[in-house]
Amino acid sequence: MASTVSPLAPSAFPTLPAVEGVTFATAEAGIRYKGRTDVLLVAMPAGTQAAGVFTRSKCPSAPVDWCRNALKGGSIRGLIVNSGNANAFTGKIGAESTRHTAGQAAKALGCKPDEILLASTGVIGEPLDARKFDPVLPDCVRRAAGEPWIDAAKAIMTTDTYPKGATATATIDGVSVTINGIAKGAGMIAPDMATMLSFVFTDAAIDAPVLQALLSRSVKTSFNAITVDSDTSTSDTLILCATGMAAKRGAPRITSPSDRRLTGFRKALDRLILDLAHQVVRDGEGARHFVSINVKGATNSASAKKIAKSIADSPLVKTAIAGEDANWGRIVAAIGKAGEPADRDRIAIFFGEYRVAANGMRDPSYSEETVSAYMKGQNIAITVDIGLGKGQFTVWTCDLTKEYVEINGDYRS
Amino acid sequence: MASTVSPLAPSAFPTLPAVEGVTFATAEAGIRYKGRTDVLLVAMPAGTQAAGVFTRSKCPSAPVDWCRNALKGGSIRGLIVNSGNANAFTGKIGAESTRHTAGQAAKALGCKPDEILLASTGVIGEPLDARKFDPVLPDCVRRAAGEPWIDAAKAIMTTDTYPKGATATATIDGVSVTINGIAKGAGMIAPDMATMLSFVFTDAAIDAPVLQALLSRSVKTSFNAITVDSDTSTSDTLILCATGMAAKRGAPRITSPSDRRLTGFRKALDRLILDLAHQVVRDGEGARHFVSINVKGATNSASAKKIAKSIADSPLVKTAIAGEDANWGRIVAAIGKAGEPADRDRIAIFFGEYRVAANGMRDPSYSEETVSAYMKGQNIAITVDIGLGKGQFTVWTCDLTKEYVEINGDYRS
Repeated sequence: MASTVSPLAPSAFPTLPAVEGVTFATAEAGIRYKGRTDVLLVAMPAGTQAAGVFTRSKCPSAPVDWCRNALKGGSIRGLIVNSGNANAFTGKIGAESTRHTAGQAAKALGCKPDEILLASTGVIGEPLDARKFDPVLPDCVRRAAGEPWIDAAKAIMTTDTYPKGATATATIDGVSVTINGIAKGAGMIAPDMATMLSFVFTDAAIDAPVLQALLSRSVKTSFNAITVDSDTSTSDTLILCATGMAAKRGAPRITSPSDRRLTGFRKALDRLILDLAHQVVRDGEGARHFVSINVKGATNSASAKKIAKSIADSPLVKTAIAGEDANWGRIVAAIGKAGEPADRDRIAIFFGEYRVAANGMRDPSYSEETVSAYMKGQNIAITVDIGLGKGQFTVWTCDLTKEYVEINGDYRS
Repeated sequence: MASTVSPLAPSAFPTLPAVEGVTFATAEAGIRYKGRTDVLLVAMPAGTQAAGVFTRSKCPSAPVDWCRNALKGGSIRGLIVNSGNANAFTGKIGAESTRHTAGQAAKALGCKPDEILLASTGVIGEPLDARKFDPVLPDCVRRAAGEPWIDAAKAIMTTDTYPKGATATATIDGVSVTINGIAKGAGMIAPDMATMLSFVFTDAAIDAPVLQALLSRSVKTSFNAITVDSDTSTSDTLILCATGMAAKRGAPRITSPSDRRLTGFRKALDRLILDLAHQVVRDGEGARHFVSINVKGATNSASAKKIAKSIADSPLVKTAIAGEDANWGRIVAAIGKAGEPADRDRIAIFFGEYRVAANGMRDPSYSEETVSAYMKGQNIAITVDIGLGKGQFTVWTCDLTKEYVEINGDYRS
């Protein structure tokens, strides 16, 4: 865990209210870290519906394998998250470790093991000694409460410099429901249909297949549109749980993703998930600038996304931003290497509101001084107009600094 | 140009003999640098055959456009290379600049403009004032000589810390021929069917279509198998010129790529081009370790290449190597994100001769101490056995250090 908080961090952790039906506790299991919490247990009532999206890595972690299977039932009762060890590339021992943990959690919560979801984050390839959870889980169940959420967000951190949370409310058929989310990120961030770790909870009464549809749609323009270092993790997990407790207050049970009463909830969920995704980028390892890359005028949105990712993942673009250098030539190179339709002589590039290049060359009105001043800001907006069609996509990333190299040269040893 | 020579540099620039028919001179045109040469003129006799491979960037530089057109004739008389300005994304001014330069060079050499090849390297997006070449080119023609090649290699450097050259001899039908090559690299190195800039000259008598076949085949496992930072340049250019002067000494004219008399020449050419490609990696910006990544056991060689590139381009793998940390968990993650067929539980990973992981988990006999000692060496060989088939591919790269970030945060401004 880094000692200095990212300069891009929000000013404070937001106040998250309790979500009816959701209680949790954290503990120190001594997985890897000393003197800090590293386990989160979340308890939820019978009938809680859940959905998840996970890494597309061909080498997924044991907990990802576990969750994919457990979610087939749609209904869950508990979630156990640990930091310090990813339980990834740990072979049969890793699979046994997930079975053991789910079994112990199920015993403590009085449910079946396949009603438990698991997530682990930290070092890859080290065996995880799951027996360390044994004494901790029953105690967590005893202490579980509906607040404070900052504790839950802190227990799942690894190299994160601040805890990440967000809250929203929405009405479903006139009944107010709450959505809370927490996330962790920092490095190995290039989510592919998922994220590092993020957990979202609501008291709304929404069936699992509907939750899945909402989630799969929402990640496309949030967690799947961010990148810190182009490295997709083995452990990316985003889970959405709905306790349904709002039904007691008259909220309808939603059984179809096209139910019109979901409009407000969907918007609130999308905003919350995007907020968490941005918080992950703002805590990118060594990040000093928060960068949005908006590509428009591409032949379609998939093409716009590929170009935007090519720019966002370019080490040369990222180091230039770290150096506060409006080096748009490197953006041209990144557009060029994306392999997508582009006509050099139609491209326009903007830093903030300043057009620096157009018609295949430097903008004649370009002022190095003005744009250099803009580059000193913390938030950098890059807009690229490909000039061919109507495809648009926005990706968020951060710069590549010496601190990133330092953190990642030292992390394991 | 960096002041400190890369610790991975060869001990000395090799002695390159003259290549019959090839003369050259360098000059200070003041394109960008002060007090160093920045222009190279190479003169070749009538009938010289040439072939080239170029960047696949959708935003190629003006000289790349020029060469693609000029090479249609197959026969050339001169080559002009400048450093300090890439003449890329320079619009109509850039195209005019290439026409002007080729016109001036043709006048000085007494040939047609489309017998002149051009290459530029340096900053992207700045207009190139081609009139600066006017007084320089006739003088270069007057001074042109067959040696010393180190001067040619120096004139084309940008952030390179040492000049790059290689030489080889081969016999064709019993007649000895010479091959000389020079290259420049450093950053924006992820060649896609080409390289940054490299020029190879021989006195063999080989027709242009044959040269093209030899070159296209050779780059696949050399320049197209290296990566410094995953950033493909707008200017990648590799040109092979054959003066045919060895014909006077009895060398046969080769008109078919399948001519068996080419066997020795092909091997010598492949070795020379691989040597130059390795020299480019060894001068990767900020590089402290030279890394070979050999993937075997993949379903086919294209799949092996994709996995090897995914590992080689992973910032987390590269920073771990910079930190001399045998962090094989990050190699697992990079294999996983490649999207190619892989079965977690069949993968084996080696650092040098040390197997660190097998059967989906850490090798029980793994000694952290032994492998940590290995990681302190300058040359790191990573072998990954996917365990599925017979596909094999090797990629070469370097580590990602704080110096890379420093160099690229400061380069332009």
